[in-house]
Amino acid sequence: MRRVLAAPDQLDRAFHALADPHRRSIVGRLSRGPASVSELAAPLAISLPAVLQHIDVLHRSGLVRSEKAGRVRTCRLEPAQLHSVEQWIAQHRATWEQRLDRLGGVLDSTYGGAAE
Amino acid sequence: MRRVLAAPDQLDRAFHALADPHRRSIVGRLSRGPASVSELAAPLAISLPAVLQHIDVLHRSGLVRSEKAGRVRTCRLEPAQLHSVEQWIAQHRATWEQRLDRLGGVLDSTYGGAAE
Repeated sequence: MRRVLAAPDQLDRAFHALADPHRRSIVGRLSRGPASVSELAAPLAISLPAVLQHIDVLHRSGLVRSEKAGRVRTCRLEPAQLHSVEQWIAQHRATWEQRLDRLGGVLDSTYGGAAE
Repeated sequence: MRRVLAAPDQLDRAFHALADPHRRSIVGRLSRGPASVSELAAPLAISLPAVLQHIDVLHRSGLVRSEKAGRVRTCRLEPAQLHSVEQWIAQHRATWEQRLDRLGGVLDSTYGGAAE
């Protein structure tokens, strides 16, 4: 019996893509608008092939898409995937908080609000 | 020149920890309340040593803490770290959405609302 959440592979890839500071830096740049590969590479102290590898990981994760016009490849953020990741976290944090609220309610009704 | 975001190691570890469906399943279970290692292992079709390794990764990521009483180790979610991850994503999605809003405003003022 194996219980995994919906579309685990997609979430695996998205979380994995975000587990690297250079890739998060690229996502950060793209959140401010589309950028060419050389614009993405400029602030990073790593080789161009390394940048291309990071972009490839982001691409396969669904967080970024890109299109080539002539010799320039322009990358864009794909917000739907960022939203899926955010939703997964928000959902589990909400479950945890609701549990705390219920616990608080039980303490209030048991100790008449005197609980810390 | 290396530009990385605040506490990148912590975020690296947290995103890495969430990039596995078994570890997300453990976080999902803990969002409903503390659980012993054997309770966490029960729904997973993997060996106990594998479960312990996953718990160790979650522990080092700061997402989960645990304490031992007698022979029972009880794990709990550490919501502050889950919140940091959520905030990182929310912040970048917000930047992206604000950019879209500005773009919409420019289109409206240029084309008098006729833009698609």
